[in-house]
Amino acid sequence: MNLVLLQKEDFTSNGRVKLHDRRYVHIRDVLQACSGDQIQVGLLGGKMGTGTIADISPHNIEVDIQLSKDPPQALPITLILAMPRPKVFKRVLQSVTALGVKRIVLINSWRVDKSYWKSPVLDAGSLLEHQILGLEQARDTILPTVEVQPRFKPFVEDSLPDLAKGTLALLAHPYAAQPCPANIKQHATLVIGPEGGFTDYEVGKMIDAGLTAVHLGTRSLRVETAVSALIGRLHPVGG
Amino acid sequence: MNLVLLQKEDFTSNGRVKLHDRRYVHIRDVLQACSGDQIQVGLLGGKMGTGTIADISPHNIEVDIQLSKDPPQALPITLILAMPRPKVFKRVLQSVTALGVKRIVLINSWRVDKSYWKSPVLDAGSLLEHQILGLEQARDTILPTVEVQPRFKPFVEDSLPDLAKGTLALLAHPYAAQPCPANIKQHATLVIGPEGGFTDYEVGKMIDAGLTAVHLGTRSLRVETAVSALIGRLHPVGG
Repeated sequence: MNLVLLQKEDFTSNGRVKLHDRRYVHIRDVLQACSGDQIQVGLLGGKMGTGTIADISPHNIEVDIQLSKDPPQALPITLILAMPRPKVFKRVLQSVTALGVKRIVLINSWRVDKSYWKSPVLDAGSLLEHQILGLEQARDTILPTVEVQPRFKPFVEDSLPDLAKGTLALLAHPYAAQPCPANIKQHATLVIGPEGGFTDYEVGKMIDAGLTAVHLGTRSLRVETAVSALIGRLHPVGG
Repeated sequence: MNLVLLQKEDFTSNGRVKLHDRRYVHIRDVLQACSGDQIQVGLLGGKMGTGTIADISPHNIEVDIQLSKDPPQALPITLILAMPRPKVFKRVLQSVTALGVKRIVLINSWRVDKSYWKSPVLDAGSLLEHQILGLEQARDTILPTVEVQPRFKPFVEDSLPDLAKGTLALLAHPYAAQPCPANIKQHATLVIGPEGGFTDYEVGKMIDAGLTAVHLGTRSLRVETAVSALIGRLHPVGG
């Protein structure tokens, strides 16, 4: 937790919050902050700034909040991801939130296990929990949106062409002829497949929708490694 | 397991192996291979090729091995990493092995907890286990070396200048003025700090040793995310 993320309901009066949950424990035990100390804070969806510890009691803490700075810039990447195993997805969601991705679309593929779509990891509360961990890590306040598209064909035919339009639209595919470009200047739409890859039919449909297939080399990577490596390749993270 | 990795002691005769461990279970249950089916194999430290299932019994499998192809190229990066939390290190070791890094140096820093150096994760058997998982993922046969350097000052003064020499030697540091380059052509020596970063003293010593401090943006990233993003940025992975 490099930033204590606040929500509107934490404020007890203008400019002061009272915390008693894991943020309180973090400030007390990890930061070991005392009255008068300053900590980094941000308002979810809003500005960032400084919190000054006003009072620590055995069950909660009161902090005076000054919000002045804008959160870091969004990363100009729309990430379209074949739904990973729920356990992997938690880590990926935290990482890409930390990297500054602001739009994540989860899609189906022949190699996505149907049970993944019923996983509690996709409940709003669970998504928020992992997004917040990513924002706290990266010192950001702006949540990414997560869209769930469990039907491949309608998504690829009806939504993907619009998402791709006006962007550098790339499909990471181990058998593509073209290598993945580096350090691009424009907004990217980046599609990353399931472990085992998209089927030929799926690749064909996405190329029809306006995507260019690119490879990262001959190595087959785990989803979480591939996502971070591709994003780091395309844009200076956070820049 | 995208590749079944063999060791010399698996061979019962020239060209045939007998497997009974997790590789056997993988071939039987995940690949669901039958007699005559072909699977991708590689010899640890050697060539890759094809295995033809000769016989499956309830406790083991016999496979005829043809080795013909070279493993993928090494990634021209020497990774120098402040020793992460053991649990994180397991994941990082698997990822960077999969990405094709062949030399990993674990170093100390003021923010590295001393207990990490005594973790069983650094035992030869544990290192090998996670390296093999990375090789199986990426279809590679060449183990990276892992060097342990638990004393910062002797390492930075006596070893780092030689490691850096003739390479693009970069220190990832959030407060550096210069952004991290992308898609470089030469061998890189890449130093990545602990969560919380190197101290000013440590940064100074590494700059004295010939490194250039570069940043990846203003976001603070988890070690595993930063490692993959930086490596993906510098080189076409596997290329």
